[in-house]
Amino acid sequence: MKNESFEKVESLKMNKDLKVTDLVKQMKKAGFGARKIGKAAEIADEMFSDKDCKRFLGIAGAMVPAGMKQIIIDLLNSEKINIFVTTGANLTHDLIEALGNEHYHCDSWNDEEFHKKNYDRIYNVLMKNKVYENLEDFFTKNWDEFKNSNSIKDFLKKIGELLPKNSNSILRVCYEKNIPLFCPGIADSGIGLMVWGRLAAGKKISVDVFADMNDIIDTAWTSKKSGVIYVGGGLPKNFIQQSLQFSKGADYGIQITTDRAESGGSSGAPLEEGKSWGKLKPDAKFVDVPCDATIALPLIFCGKI
Amino acid sequence: MKNESFEKVESLKMNKDLKVTDLVKQMKKAGFGARKIGKAAEIADEMFSDKDCKRFLGIAGAMVPAGMKQIIIDLLNSEKINIFVTTGANLTHDLIEALGNEHYHCDSWNDEEFHKKNYDRIYNVLMKNKVYENLEDFFTKNWDEFKNSNSIKDFLKKIGELLPKNSNSILRVCYEKNIPLFCPGIADSGIGLMVWGRLAAGKKISVDVFADMNDIIDTAWTSKKSGVIYVGGGLPKNFIQQSLQFSKGADYGIQITTDRAESGGSSGAPLEEGKSWGKLKPDAKFVDVPCDATIALPLIFCGKI
Amino acid sequence: MKNESFEKVESLKMNKDLKVTDLVKQMKKAGFGARKIGKAAEIADEMFSDKDCKRFLGIAGAMVPAGMKQIIIDLLNSEKINIFVTTGANLTHDLIEALGNEHYHCDSWNDEEFHKKNYDRIYNVLMKNKVYENLEDFFTKNWDEFKNSNSIKDFLKKIGELLPKNSNSILRVCYEKNIPLFCPGIADSGIGLMVWGRLAAGKKISVDVFADMNDIIDTAWTSKKSGVIYVGGGLPKNFIQQSLQFSKGADYGIQITTDRAESGGSSGAPLEEGKSWGKLKPDAKFVDVPCDATIALPLIFCGKI
Amino acid sequence: MKNESFEKVESLKMNKDLKVTDLVKQMKKAGFGARKIGKAAEIADEMFSDKDCKRFLGIAGAMVPAGMKQIIIDLLNSEKINIFVTTGANLTHDLIEALGNEHYHCDSWNDEEFHKKNYDRIYNVLMKNKVYENLEDFFTKNWDEFKNSNSIKDFLKKIGELLPKNSNSILRVCYEKNIPLFCPGIADSGIGLMVWGRLAAGKKISVDVFADMNDIIDTAWTSKKSGVIYVGGGLPKNFIQQSLQFSKGADYGIQITTDRAESGGSSGAPLEEGKSWGKLKPDAKFVDVPCDATIALPLIFCGKI
Repeated sequence: MKNESFEKVESLKMNKDLKVTDLVKQMKKAGFGARKIGKAAEIADEMFSDKDCKRFLGIAGAMVPAGMKQIIIDLLNSEKINIFVTTGANLTHDLIEALGNEHYHCDSWNDEEFHKKNYDRIYNVLMKNKVYENLEDFFTKNWDEFKNSNSIKDFLKKIGELLPKNSNSILRVCYEKNIPLFCPGIADSGIGLMVWGRLAAGKKISVDVFADMNDIIDTAWTSKKSGVIYVGGGLPKNFIQQSLQFSKGADYGIQITTDRAESGGSSGAPLEEGKSWGKLKPDAKFVDVPCDATIALPLIFCGKI
Repeated sequence: MKNESFEKVESLKMNKDLKVTDLVKQMKKAGFGARKIGKAAEIADEMFSDKDCKRFLGIAGAMVPAGMKQIIIDLLNSEKINIFVTTGANLTHDLIEALGNEHYHCDSWNDEEFHKKNYDRIYNVLMKNKVYENLEDFFTKNWDEFKNSNSIKDFLKKIGELLPKNSNSILRVCYEKNIPLFCPGIADSGIGLMVWGRLAAGKKISVDVFADMNDIIDTAWTSKKSGVIYVGGGLPKNFIQQSLQFSKGADYGIQITTDRAESGGSSGAPLEEGKSWGKLKPDAKFVDVPCDATIALPLIFCGKI
Repeated sequence: MKNESFEKVESLKMNKDLKVTDLVKQMKKAGFGARKIGKAAEIADEMFSDKDCKRFLGIAGAMVPAGMKQIIIDLLNSEKINIFVTTGANLTHDLIEALGNEHYHCDSWNDEEFHKKNYDRIYNVLMKNKVYENLEDFFTKNWDEFKNSNSIKDFLKKIGELLPKNSNSILRVCYEKNIPLFCPGIADSGIGLMVWGRLAAGKKISVDVFADMNDIIDTAWTSKKSGVIYVGGGLPKNFIQQSLQFSKGADYGIQITTDRAESGGSSGAPLEEGKSWGKLKPDAKFVDVPCDATIALPLIFCGKI
Repeated sequence: MKNESFEKVESLKMNKDLKVTDLVKQMKKAGFGARKIGKAAEIADEMFSDKDCKRFLGIAGAMVPAGMKQIIIDLLNSEKINIFVTTGANLTHDLIEALGNEHYHCDSWNDEEFHKKNYDRIYNVLMKNKVYENLEDFFTKNWDEFKNSNSIKDFLKKIGELLPKNSNSILRVCYEKNIPLFCPGIADSGIGLMVWGRLAAGKKISVDVFADMNDIIDTAWTSKKSGVIYVGGGLPKNFIQQSLQFSKGADYGIQITTDRAESGGSSGAPLEEGKSWGKLKPDAKFVDVPCDATIALPLIFCGKI
């Protein structure tokens, strides 16, 4: 109950021209989840304006197929993120779109039908199965370029380098802005499958699984202050969290997930739990936002990028 | 898969002046939960502009303490709702605020401490326990006014009538706009406790528990078309749903709840399930929004009230 | 962290003859949800063996169609429950079965098809729509019997009385064992619809909505100690909780629900929150079990009834 | 609705000597989650007795600290699993216990206090932070043994080989039984941190991140039939799922997770979705069990190991 101010709850008042940023300010004065959206936006402001703060962004979940790509790109492009960790799935979908393919809506489903029509489903989003052909072409054509990629980070940087300059792509923006992009689970993705295909065809590369650890731990170790933004938990969150054990603990934290704490997984673990591990400072400013990320992300980051 | 259009997912693009209504339009083109917010806003437009449609609003959950009172009042005031069903808790909190009391924020909690300080907690919202004194005064002073309240609807209408003209109150706006307000679980609330207190003091009223059923069923029965908006499930949803068995089935539906379908309760049951019961038309336009209502409500109804 | 013992986690060890009661004892030594099942079973034992303790059972959710009827009946029959509060839905399904009808499984669904075939769906359970005919016959035939039912409790007791002696029914066992059965939301149920049908046909009864409050509050008020068991939250939980404000606060508590705390509803509110309201004693023994009740109930109560 | 049998729901009947296996058989005849537990146990039986079936087990979530280690070991030991994929966290905790350390219970928490006392919290389980010293000793002492570990699988096999013969350990049993153990996210774990520590100290090993893909894909490709058991989703599930794209699709499936489908992540995606991708056969026997794994695992696998 420390720092408890007992401010008054104020009822949200809308009008047809209300701006998102003003709605979010009002949400801060409401209760339940709205309050958390409002707090998250405020903590993001503080984190972004703190010059001593290294910011770690971890994104799991299929955010690219769900139309969150531009928010991520804009966030990376705004130079507010120092370290980005994501899943192989997100990068695969990013590459798929960078190579000219699309994702589609579906509001109801019959998965046997989709299979016959060669559509793959990701909840209420569809992808044509033939996107894999474009992926394969990309890696076949460029395979020699990867021969010196010894770490996952370098491997991904090379993909970004190979994409055209005007690509609206996460991989590309990380390359252009020189943002360290980590993906410890790269083997578990469509990109991983492409590499396997090349390797099966006898063309060797050697990418060390542990090679990237030093970079991210070093950033955590040497940062005066740090802030974390987690979407969906998973490997991205945990990979950042374990690095923070070598920091003084994060000063700022925002977590967006619908996973539950009670089943004990890292994805649903409230940020508070990190205090026991030294991953979060006792006096950190942080908030857990139990909300679908496709709803929470635009609200929290509108006006900041 | 009927009516499946396979439209393209488009990535959300924000700017600092983005209006809520424009964000929600963009959300319609994104995936996962964002898509559902966008669809809900669109269905609300259709439902509200359909002159043949009777609209049933059911709200459970402590929406008033969470700062959603104004949205509800504005929605009722806009004459877009024909029948409103809610919990005794929401009406109690509404009356509490109408009598001049407030709710407060808390972002962390120690419930033993709160008890010592006479604060009652509702997740991240607090209420002073002494609000009950104001409630008791209200009913003590006005008790004779209720002697002819034979149905819950009449009892609640009388409360609305007794409140000052300028009250910013759900009870008051329902009275002023003559919107039938149902609360089948009124005994289960602070207002119920106040009545019990009066009855214990020997002052009788007699409010029949079944008296209101005819009104709501008759509205369902006689409506050419109908639309439902459910927040949080509970009694309000189910009370409307059972009435719809006597209609042709709802034509429009929006449901906002974080409860799960799998545990089998009515609150988490997807609207689709209502088709088996005849509560929803086979070709109804509807969407389930699995989101905290304090986040979903302002997004969906911004620009409509 | 008070009373923190830091006992060792022990790994569950199974064999093909393992008894449920022994599994549950082992679960107490495991982590996450298993631990909670084990603790709940232990707390139930303490609550049931405490002679000074009045026990309140509140059950929401469609437990009867889901095959949990016998557990509830055996629990009531064992005389371990002093007050039982449930939903109109559960009592309607209980009456439906008492009148000779059944519920059915479905593992996949097409709600339009079910509607055509006159099956109503409750998640993965089906009911023939024609059960309503039996219900209607029951009330038509017996309607005069209800003319003196002035409270919901008396009305329900009368149903129990009218059922044959050998009925395997919740309504019947409450009648036989003289257990006060409360259902504040009775109007919101199939039974409510039957009453409406009778009233619409011009046959009056008058059941006061507030009449039962005194009984349950009086039990809370006069009990030396109290224990609560909540399944699914809803009106049953809240109706007991508000009564406990007039007690010294519950000494024992078990809550089974998959609803989340963060959306602020009473159903998902952890028992701990009740301490702020005085509904739970500071030193109460209690546990929240976030689990499907059809899985948790048999585990927790096996061997006790 | 194909294969819809509309069997009757039967009410669970318990007695104090009821065996777990008999309870689970009864659960199959109940509704909601109980039904799913019962079905999962039945599908497990079919999967285990199908001689043509290769069985893939994927376990995320901190199952070892939660007391589920023995179930996993017994399952592996029973030779019913052909491929095992898990998280680095589970293997780290397994190694921690194999090296003589323990996990502890906590039912309430103060994370700042835990930090001061050097306890790390995993929901309601604690671990002493000093376990890392034992881990470090293990790797320091044995580091040279790993110099030829070129794949993650070989690296993990070496750990198993180094553990004493009587170790009650997942790593050990996989070694002894020669079960391929995959952990694509090994860098994201305490074991990963130990390797980083060694590498930072200048002692090189080179473990290729893609090296294991061929093995698991080859097993999927060549299997006549296949079955999957997923606990908690995450990388383990997805790594198996992507391999199954190269199979004919799984014939049997059991998924245990509390993650939601609606937020679009792989962990919460119902098995059905896999049909669109060809990861699950159209006529597969499968069930999603939305339950805490520490409760579901012992119920489903009791009597089978």
